[in-house]
Amino acid sequence: MPTDLPKNQPDDPNPQLVPVASANRLGIYLRELERLEKNKISTINSRQLGENLGLSDSQIRRDLAIFGQFGRRGVGYSVRELAQSIREILGINQNWGVILIGVGNLGRALAGYRGFAKNGYRLIAAFDNNPTVVGSKLADAKVHHIDSLEKVIPTLNVQLAILAVPADTAQALAIRLSKCGIQGILNFAPVTLKTPQQDVTCVDVDLALELQRLVFAVVSRDRTR
Amino acid sequence: MPTDLPKNQPDDPNPQLVPVASANRLGIYLRELERLEKNKISTINSRQLGENLGLSDSQIRRDLAIFGQFGRRGVGYSVRELAQSIREILGINQNWGVILIGVGNLGRALAGYRGFAKNGYRLIAAFDNNPTVVGSKLADAKVHHIDSLEKVIPTLNVQLAILAVPADTAQALAIRLSKCGIQGILNFAPVTLKTPQQDVTCVDVDLALELQRLVFAVVSRDRTR
Repeated sequence: MPTDLPKNQPDDPNPQLVPVASANRLGIYLRELERLEKNKISTINSRQLGENLGLSDSQIRRDLAIFGQFGRRGVGYSVRELAQSIREILGINQNWGVILIGVGNLGRALAGYRGFAKNGYRLIAAFDNNPTVVGSKLADAKVHHIDSLEKVIPTLNVQLAILAVPADTAQALAIRLSKCGIQGILNFAPVTLKTPQQDVTCVDVDLALELQRLVFAVVSRDRTR
Repeated sequence: MPTDLPKNQPDDPNPQLVPVASANRLGIYLRELERLEKNKISTINSRQLGENLGLSDSQIRRDLAIFGQFGRRGVGYSVRELAQSIREILGINQNWGVILIGVGNLGRALAGYRGFAKNGYRLIAAFDNNPTVVGSKLADAKVHHIDSLEKVIPTLNVQLAILAVPADTAQALAIRLSKCGIQGILNFAPVTLKTPQQDVTCVDVDLALELQRLVFAVVSRDRTR
């Protein structure tokens, strides 16, 4: 297992065969392939793709080799075909319903985030405890009271939840979500969730931590000058 | 002359030798230590800390050993002291001014994100090209026209920028920012930026990619059932 991700990141069922980091890079490859497609570029080789992304060509070939045979020697990859294959591997060639827990500033921005819709994610319901937002609509989705979580979720046929609530309420909500059958949580609360790993996968996005990573990189560079 | 290290950086590890993953985990340790502090817990050992975070105790000890000597054998770490040491290592024991490029939904949410202020980051200016927001205020910061970037930034004494613009404008803006002396960019645009690495550091946060990671983990688990 690569050690460049915290332990509570998605556990691949077969970590011996699919490093998490490789799976994550597939999403970056797909993003670049879609950009190339938009710019009418139909073929690319691993060297060019690597140059565009700041990665080595051997890294790209190794990552792709885990998932199958792509491209032709001396020709490169068909941009359209490789993009489609990666979509299938990542499970994004289908529509995914998502529920949102927490309709604050961040929750609202996430609900309106175009990148989600573009990739086939659709907000189908939201939940909050604030009476001024309960009953309203958010990007076509109804905002339910958080108390009705257990009643509403089973009617939705949904596996994914975005958790955008304060740190001190996130843990209890994650447990409630997993008991309702939610299988994946994108967690924006700045706390490490403890959930039964066989039931639910959590991916953490802590925006303040990302800014800290940046500051550390800037500070480290300054110190060596 | 003795070849001692310069006085102002006695214990700084060589950033070349500090694994990025270790530096990133320090932020996660700090977040947990601050939670413990709030709950009036004054001492913790590496085993307990690891249990709280889903990490091994040896991982934690290895990470901390890179940066210095912490804690006492058989006693553990002083929560307050270790938190303060990590803040110093990460460069967050000071106030950092940040500018925001792009005052859309996501930019607004980031401007109001409490996690930033809590960690000492302060929004000091914002930029957009939309005439309806230029001239307004966003969390105490003035929204300037994007055309005045080169004029305004040098007056601000700022090193960090948050880039929350569409993918097709991000690259040109990143170059403009680096030319104005910005040294770190937190990039929310779904594109890999190409910037001169010696001048500016970029940390990417692609929210759709994070959701893809989650879907991949869920799909992989389903496939093995």
